Amino acid sequence: MSKPVWIKHASQLVTMASEHKGPRTKVAMSELSIIEDGSIWLENGVIQAIGTTEELKKRYNNRITEAEIIEAVGKLVTPGLIDPHTHVAYGGSREHEFEMRLEGATYMDIMNAGGGIHATSRMTREATEEEIFDQTEKRLNSFLTHGVTTIEGKSGYGLNMETELKQLRVMQRLQIEHPIDIVPTFMGAHAVPVEFKGKEDQYVDLIVNEMLPQVAEEKLAQFNDVFCEVGVFTPEQSKRILVAGRNLGLTPKIHADEIEPYGGAELAAEVGAISAEHLLKASDTGIAAMAKKGVIACLLPATALYLRETAARGRAMIDAGVPVAISTDCNPGSSPTTSMPLVMNLACISMKLTPAESLCAATYNAACAIKMEDKIGSLEIGKQADIVLWNVPNYQQLQYLFGVNHVNSVWKKGVKVVG
Amino acid sequence: MSKPVWIKHASQLVTMASEHKGPRTKVAMSELSIIEDGSIWLENGVIQAIGTTEELKKRYNNRITEAEIIEAVGKLVTPGLIDPHTHVAYGGSREHEFEMRLEGATYMDIMNAGGGIHATSRMTREATEEEIFDQTEKRLNSFLTHGVTTIEGKSGYGLNMETELKQLRVMQRLQIEHPIDIVPTFMGAHAVPVEFKGKEDQYVDLIVNEMLPQVAEEKLAQFNDVFCEVGVFTPEQSKRILVAGRNLGLTPKIHADEIEPYGGAELAAEVGAISAEHLLKASDTGIAAMAKKGVIACLLPATALYLRETAARGRAMIDAGVPVAISTDCNPGSSPTTSMPLVMNLACISMKLTPAESLCAATYNAACAIKMEDKIGSLEIGKQADIVLWNVPNYQQLQYLFGVNHVNSVWKKGVKVVG
Repeated sequence: MSKPVWIKHASQLVTMASEHKGPRTKVAMSELSIIEDGSIWLENGVIQAIGTTEELKKRYNNRITEAEIIEAVGKLVTPGLIDPHTHVAYGGSREHEFEMRLEGATYMDIMNAGGGIHATSRMTREATEEEIFDQTEKRLNSFLTHGVTTIEGKSGYGLNMETELKQLRVMQRLQIEHPIDIVPTFMGAHAVPVEFKGKEDQYVDLIVNEMLPQVAEEKLAQFNDVFCEVGVFTPEQSKRILVAGRNLGLTPKIHADEIEPYGGAELAAEVGAISAEHLLKASDTGIAAMAKKGVIACLLPATALYLRETAARGRAMIDAGVPVAISTDCNPGSSPTTSMPLVMNLACISMKLTPAESLCAATYNAACAIKMEDKIGSLEIGKQADIVLWNVPNYQQLQYLFGVNHVNSVWKKGVKVVG
Repeated sequence: MSKPVWIKHASQLVTMASEHKGPRTKVAMSELSIIEDGSIWLENGVIQAIGTTEELKKRYNNRITEAEIIEAVGKLVTPGLIDPHTHVAYGGSREHEFEMRLEGATYMDIMNAGGGIHATSRMTREATEEEIFDQTEKRLNSFLTHGVTTIEGKSGYGLNMETELKQLRVMQRLQIEHPIDIVPTFMGAHAVPVEFKGKEDQYVDLIVNEMLPQVAEEKLAQFNDVFCEVGVFTPEQSKRILVAGRNLGLTPKIHADEIEPYGGAELAAEVGAISAEHLLKASDTGIAAMAKKGVIACLLPATALYLRETAARGRAMIDAGVPVAISTDCNPGSSPTTSMPLVMNLACISMKLTPAESLCAATYNAACAIKMEDKIGSLEIGKQADIVLWNVPNYQQLQYLFGVNHVNSVWKKGVKVVG
């Protein structure tokens, strides 16, 4: 049993504790429950007590000498960040495609040079499990240094049974071997594989009849995601895949309305998806349907920036009563970043979330998007001790001094893993 | 005399060496002069030799035991980054204004609450020199951890003799006490101070007749900058200030065409400014005039992002033959960031510079914008040993894996200052 840890004198301890259960909407997103001169006692990987430094000093008076003491004077302390949407496990790298594009290559030039998502699919198929493990581990290390203690990770670059399972197994191993918790999502329906071009329904059959049962059987995923988009999977195909997954115990997620309004948000509400992702072009009807059913909007402003698109209407969604979470979308094609702090900044700058809402979207609501809010996402007694100390005195500066990783140190299950 | 340092086996050593002297345009901006398996020998604060690891191994065969050896396997090595446009020395902080704005406050609400540039002016006037020194030092530390080894710093929040001099003296002290080199710019004409509202010409008189001579007398600045903008200083007032400074030996710079096309780019060419800044709304005529006179465009894509403006037409300017540099614009109102790596990423994403051009804009051309290219901005024998090692293997990944500070270690005048 490890030493208890006492983090004390935090200038702002943002606990995110609230009476509200489940995904937060509207004003609840701004209820940060801040303790000034805050203090937190960690033991056995869990939060044992939380309050002012004065309160904890009294309470643990006769145990202080046992504890490792962390002075947090002048520092903001928050729950560990949670990234609820990543494609973190893949093979290869595509920086040369990025350069080609900026040197004037067209989309077709890049496709002809073997680029795009099919390039990653090819490199992920060709890579050994060990190679994917190694490069994914490096990305997880980067996430951790940016204050992220839990991420969701999707398959979806294999697009065949063998490689989809390979991606999921890499995540399963990393869940054990890396401090970050990885919540796995099966996303066989991320793209139509080259060999099924024009035979999309046959690929849907393969997913529904073979891949999903195998994934469920091996308990390799908790969620099932699909890219519902013009030219990828239709709402009908998407529904078939999501319902099939749901019947096997996999909670639906959906990449919706990213490029065109296509009824994805509406479908998310219809099938009881826990979250709908991207939503750059979501319709007002779709947003209203999501609000009614409590579907979480998982918004990805770094992707919009990288693709030079206008970000999703985060402000309008919150105002309409949709619970909003945010994410890096970490992937080699449209968002090769691992910085949740930047994503929080962009949520303010590009989507007009307030600094408080942005923090909620990256912690508590993000936890809800992966059904982990009973364990993580806020600092409360009995919850997992996933904590970040920041080199800024308040949550406003965390968003205002943008583009900088202000992480001072990171604690995962009560153990210091960064700083 | 300190130990020599041998940095070896860099996967890419980007030297930026070139036959071209002075600001680089068009294809010259992409000439990175890359040495694979690169090696560099530092001694007495200067670069003594540069080449392949094999070459330097032969050359220093009998001195290797003397040297501190740095293994750069798998790492990109570049010149230290240079930020040629900052307002780094100021008092106070304005994160609450950022929050107010996102909570729905209008521009007038913020002005009525004492916000905006006049808030910083007030806080800078009220702060002691020591207080400004302390908070500026923290920002310089952050710049350094982001790979920046030299910055330009402007006055311009004092807007009276006493406080303008206070800002410049803080920079003078930091130039001595901090590893970063600070090149000072006088910018009394950053805004019209509240007490001169409606009497702008009298403030221009004060700048021309009193402030500039004093600054020149005390040798507190090398450059003289002015905010030429509708509602701030007219082109005529700006010209008067810039010519007066030039006659005292201060090289003109100009904040031009940020909010409206106002002839700022044209004026920059006319008065022989070394650089024109912002340029979001620069006209085609202005761009052509800058190209003809070799005026450097100093572009600030982080400011555009933060203000939700469309970034300057960096691609078009390069294509028109303008030498381009980039900068954070670090300031408390419109760009509270210290991350030049993010600025490089944004130059690619928002202004369509190639990864190579972006690196040139943040090193060699940035050095030219502060007339330091004989000493810094490229890695060549005899130049100052300001060097960054990056945790990526090539310059393309530096731009592609965006939003992350990939700095591994920083060397200033041959001494390790980060990492």
